[in-house]
Amino acid sequence: MKMKKFINAPETITDEELIGLGLAYPDILDVDGHLVISKDLADADRVTIVTYGGSGHEPAQAGFVGKGMLDVQAVGDIFAAPNAKLVFEAMKRADKGHGVLLLTLNYAGDQLAGKQAIKLAQKAGLNFRQVVTGEEVQYDPNGEDNKRGLAGAVALYHIAAAAAREGKSLDEVAEIAQRYADSMASITVKSTDATHPQNGMSFGDLGETDLMEIGAGQHGEGGGVRVPMMSSKDTVAAVAEVLSKKLGLAAGDKAFVMINGCGATTMMEMLVLFKDTVEFLKARGVEVVASMVGEILTVQEAGGFQMNIAKWDEEFIRLWNTPCHTPAYSKE
Amino acid sequence: MKMKKFINAPETITDEELIGLGLAYPDILDVDGHLVISKDLADADRVTIVTYGGSGHEPAQAGFVGKGMLDVQAVGDIFAAPNAKLVFEAMKRADKGHGVLLLTLNYAGDQLAGKQAIKLAQKAGLNFRQVVTGEEVQYDPNGEDNKRGLAGAVALYHIAAAAAREGKSLDEVAEIAQRYADSMASITVKSTDATHPQNGMSFGDLGETDLMEIGAGQHGEGGGVRVPMMSSKDTVAAVAEVLSKKLGLAAGDKAFVMINGCGATTMMEMLVLFKDTVEFLKARGVEVVASMVGEILTVQEAGGFQMNIAKWDEEFIRLWNTPCHTPAYSKE
Repeated sequence: MKMKKFINAPETITDEELIGLGLAYPDILDVDGHLVISKDLADADRVTIVTYGGSGHEPAQAGFVGKGMLDVQAVGDIFAAPNAKLVFEAMKRADKGHGVLLLTLNYAGDQLAGKQAIKLAQKAGLNFRQVVTGEEVQYDPNGEDNKRGLAGAVALYHIAAAAAREGKSLDEVAEIAQRYADSMASITVKSTDATHPQNGMSFGDLGETDLMEIGAGQHGEGGGVRVPMMSSKDTVAAVAEVLSKKLGLAAGDKAFVMINGCGATTMMEMLVLFKDTVEFLKARGVEVVASMVGEILTVQEAGGFQMNIAKWDEEFIRLWNTPCHTPAYSKE
Repeated sequence: MKMKKFINAPETITDEELIGLGLAYPDILDVDGHLVISKDLADADRVTIVTYGGSGHEPAQAGFVGKGMLDVQAVGDIFAAPNAKLVFEAMKRADKGHGVLLLTLNYAGDQLAGKQAIKLAQKAGLNFRQVVTGEEVQYDPNGEDNKRGLAGAVALYHIAAAAAREGKSLDEVAEIAQRYADSMASITVKSTDATHPQNGMSFGDLGETDLMEIGAGQHGEGGGVRVPMMSSKDTVAAVAEVLSKKLGLAAGDKAFVMINGCGATTMMEMLVLFKDTVEFLKARGVEVVASMVGEILTVQEAGGFQMNIAKWDEEFIRLWNTPCHTPAYSKE
């Protein structure tokens, strides 16, 4: 069977989808080549928030550009970091005289592009701070601890932007962002493979098995444990147990829970998984005070989900409960 | 290969996902069994908007309960209309003394439940009006004209709710809703089959072919034309041509475009399809003044999309450009 995706040419997918994004959300953002820029930036008199990353993970990250989340995203090609010049250009565009917070997901390509962009920024005398997220928790006790940056970063966009909108300094915003990055943990569960939209190849090798992989990584890079498909409750118990332990969650704690659908997993399943996670934590005396449930950072039409849990204090709760408005997430 | 879905028991999927919905959006809605009720209803002093339908199409319809869209939805089991008593209960709960607009999608089961609920409402002396949407356009000139209700109804939720919030009477709101229902047209393009979450069976019979089906219907019931997969541009040209003709779109007209992902089709593809639709219409002098692009009414993890185009006048534009806030769609 040939790849069944609605595209025109493999080499222009990202260009074309970004044009589509700009046409669909003219009230929220502008698209200039591979830069996606919040309309809200025009009048910004505060610290601004920049990130960058490959396409193919929609709605992440460009779908979170807008009021109260990202100011600028530099977009790479499918699953590939943009070049350092574009990341630097995003930082320059974003700077409103109060400095720029650069958020990086921990992957080799993103780290490299970030390092080079930072050199350009330093040379230009730009005021910036970088925070790297790599909240993946090793599920297999004998496996490799990859500390990959998963979907939890998306909640951080809003936390950091809210801090900036309170008028905090760059150092203060960076400190809150770093504290948030250190307060969260994620695991990916993959159930079916996806198709690369440029070469039509299936990636991942779960194939036609009855297995799922816990700890599979964002692109299904692997490194996890393969087990037969389990019920929602059993899957949640396995994953939430490890995350809770990592975060040291105890009775009386408050938590944020994200269930991120990888692509083909339905909202129906995500809501069942979320319910089971809330109940799992409640049984341990942990209160879920906020959440995101839906397709946040996908890997094409992969089946599976990421669970992200963050331990929240009153500052995170206050910052979260402020408005934001982007194509993929809004709060009143 | 067994079904690979994260559920607990087939018979409780809908109950469980609704509990999850209530836990995820406590600021927007309340869940009472199979009724999903907008928090905004408590202080409503206006006409209210009610719909009903089977689960399995998430985020539709419960994901559109909230401010400026649905006041109450009665939820059935997977792909099945709720019973008439529950639809009547939804209407009673919604009524704030100004009457209730009941929106029905044209399917046999939904029409039957609606007819029975209306009898109960009449007996109880409830003030209501019903509008049925069935905007599907026959793609195959020799095929059966099913006039099924597709995703276009979701845009109507906001148009009708906005009219109600302007203080219009029930007759006025119903008149606008009927006019909207008559101003739109949709076609479904299906590329891959989905799995029934209760019995694990694949439904639809595209199977491992290179074909897509234009005019497939919401559940992939069929009745369309099967052709080899085409590019986004060619697919858009085929579908938008038929929709434009049906609506009599001509140079100078203004249009709304919805690209609704059926489940496995990525946001990336939807944005490319949307761009191509805007360009197709622009070449004919038709301006796209508003849009919805994303997963709106899905069929589990089916591949494909629905294109909905509506011919808009100044009243529709004014009503659309008012705020709404629901789990799956928000406007400032």
